[in-house]
Amino acid sequence: MSVVVVFITAPKGKGEEIAGKIIESRLAACANVISGVKSVYWWKGKVERDEEDLIVLKTVEERLDELIEFVKRVHPYEVPEVIAVKVVKGLQEYLVWVENEVREA
Amino acid sequence: MSVVVVFITAPKGKGEEIAGKIIESRLAACANVISGVKSVYWWKGKVERDEEDLIVLKTVEERLDELIEFVKRVHPYEVPEVIAVKVVKGLQEYLVWVENEVREA
Amino acid sequence: MSVVVVFITAPKGKGEEIAGKIIESRLAACANVISGVKSVYWWKGKVERDEEDLIVLKTVEERLDELIEFVKRVHPYEVPEVIAVKVVKGLQEYLVWVENEVREA
Repeated sequence: MSVVVVFITAPKGKGEEIAGKIIESRLAACANVISGVKSVYWWKGKVERDEEDLIVLKTVEERLDELIEFVKRVHPYEVPEVIAVKVVKGLQEYLVWVENEVREA
Repeated sequence: MSVVVVFITAPKGKGEEIAGKIIESRLAACANVISGVKSVYWWKGKVERDEEDLIVLKTVEERLDELIEFVKRVHPYEVPEVIAVKVVKGLQEYLVWVENEVREA
Repeated sequence: MSVVVVFITAPKGKGEEIAGKIIESRLAACANVISGVKSVYWWKGKVERDEEDLIVLKTVEERLDELIEFVKRVHPYEVPEVIAVKVVKGLQEYLVWVENEVREA
């Protein structure tokens, strides 16, 4: 198993709700929600500015496909950001903890 | 093309302005600005403490050299932080959206 | 040397103190502390919700083992999050600055 950090943006105030659903479904071991980040982005030919929540999840690479499908189902955006970066090293007991918490029941 | 997450720190209150210039120049598809993070860092032999904005950009690896040059031109710091980490997997429509938004005109 | 971004979570209000100890020990060049993130996580069979500080450190891969040991000694959690992701590209002067600031005395 290999641990990954996943970034998801959500509408302001919705981050904890979405993170909670993901954690309860055992698709991630933990989530940190940074509320009220200022977002600037291209959307349909215009630069948009918004406040969002940024969710930082920790899970394993082997559950990413399921996590992506799950987020598509529960997220209000047409094309939500769900992107994963690989952990190259970490505190071993923590990495094992992440793996155990997302092991399929 | 491969999507990357780029971290840039900026003086407190300047994050949105710098992020806006980067997005408008099509060097990134979106930016999340976390304002007022507490920074601790070595600078010229002393530990300094400051408040900064942390910018989290999403772009593609192929545009990083241009992005780095651009930030050097517009950023007030002598040696600004511009560091990129690789996305190993993500929601496919989102990855395609990032690539399309930073495609050279 | 290769630069990495390290994520560490800490009890709310403790992030700056822990980051300061790490920086002063030259195990990282800089730290950004995001205070009061909302955390959701599994702990001993229950979903817990808490406020934490999220520390984002920049250091080199060669010092990670020492950093992990150091965090285990100074951190109040039984199993603290210490996870590193690899920087694939960045502003060259900044990468050199990180390497120089964590070079062993």
